[in-house]
Amino acid sequence: MSTETRPVRTGRPRSIPASDTEHSPREQILDAAAALFVENGFTATPTRAIAERVGIRQASLYYHFANKEEMLDELLTASVRPGLEVVRSLEALVPASASAAGALHAALILDTTTLIKAAHNFAILWLLPEVQGERYNSFRTERQELLHVYGRLGGAAATEAVAATVSEEQLGAIIIHLTELISHLRRTGEPDPVYLEVIAATVLRACGLDAAAIEAAIAESQRLRM
Amino acid sequence: MSTETRPVRTGRPRSIPASDTEHSPREQILDAAAALFVENGFTATPTRAIAERVGIRQASLYYHFANKEEMLDELLTASVRPGLEVVRSLEALVPASASAAGALHAALILDTTTLIKAAHNFAILWLLPEVQGERYNSFRTERQELLHVYGRLGGAAATEAVAATVSEEQLGAIIIHLTELISHLRRTGEPDPVYLEVIAATVLRACGLDAAAIEAAIAESQRLRM
Repeated sequence: MSTETRPVRTGRPRSIPASDTEHSPREQILDAAAALFVENGFTATPTRAIAERVGIRQASLYYHFANKEEMLDELLTASVRPGLEVVRSLEALVPASASAAGALHAALILDTTTLIKAAHNFAILWLLPEVQGERYNSFRTERQELLHVYGRLGGAAATEAVAATVSEEQLGAIIIHLTELISHLRRTGEPDPVYLEVIAATVLRACGLDAAAIEAAIAESQRLRM
Repeated sequence: MSTETRPVRTGRPRSIPASDTEHSPREQILDAAAALFVENGFTATPTRAIAERVGIRQASLYYHFANKEEMLDELLTASVRPGLEVVRSLEALVPASASAAGALHAALILDTTTLIKAAHNFAILWLLPEVQGERYNSFRTERQELLHVYGRLGGAAATEAVAATVSEEQLGAIIIHLTELISHLRRTGEPDPVYLEVIAATVLRACGLDAAAIEAAIAESQRLRM
């Protein structure tokens, strides 16, 4: 995995960050910012605290980022882009080499696995009150795109009865929101990994699939993820 | 409606708050705090800004509340208690005068109606990073209780296949999380009211109900809400 595509490291933070030679200073800064923003919020986190956690001077921090907003922007993008890439690549398999229900289930398992395994619960950051201005529009565009891909997959998997009453936009909003249950659970401890399967099956039920159709989708999803 | 049970006013904020005679100073302060916490966050909102919005001196504010934490605590409780009361009262009708599915649907419509109609989107406040300490444990206890009531109703409404694979705890987490989609949608504008029906039907699908069972539950829910 190149450092270009992974701005947030996935390992646990080290006790002596200065000895971290595996990750670039930029990655270390983002890691510290993610931890502090999740714990204390954006406004309540001074850049000095981020620099201290990394073990560098505050001035060095500004060599890598113009300001805190730039760090938050990058973290927001990192919280949504891997999921978007995974869901898009699975959508590309439909209908030739995967059914919509199988691809949707696989996408959900992979997306929520990322959410449960990330070093910090930074997928929750988009709920910060500070993330409301135009400054973060490019993140919002990517999140909206993830919603649309999920909506299309959900719409393609849905039964006629569900497709007739729930739009793809609504289905997308419900699906992306259900994946985010993982981030909400992480606020109060480590969620039981069984939630990944429960969320994926719940989404298929929300699309109107019956028990037999869900079982088939799960079997296909396992093959798609191998 | 007595002022005792409604700490947050439901009307729109006035342009000249000082002329507000309908609501107690305490209610006006909570209203202003809710608006500012939702917009700017907790740490980023000085009590001075709350006092200014109400049109009172900062010292008067401390006559009603010891500190900002007390205001947030009261707003958090106000965001969950009405829903809890509604869902409990509907659960009490099961099974003698309502089916679990009908009561669950009615509970969801009433709960999400509260979320969509509140003057400010203050049901989102529990996601503030500042709401993690023991200070807000009493709110968390009430939210956990709402989750349990929803879980029991969901478990009672669920098909055997769903009840065998999804625990009441998991079902409760999914249901309460789906109601909160309204608050998430409110962050970027006024949600289409059709979402209330979509969320309620989605919850019934998540419980494994088929189209005919959902139709029956909706008809019963309408009678229960009359």
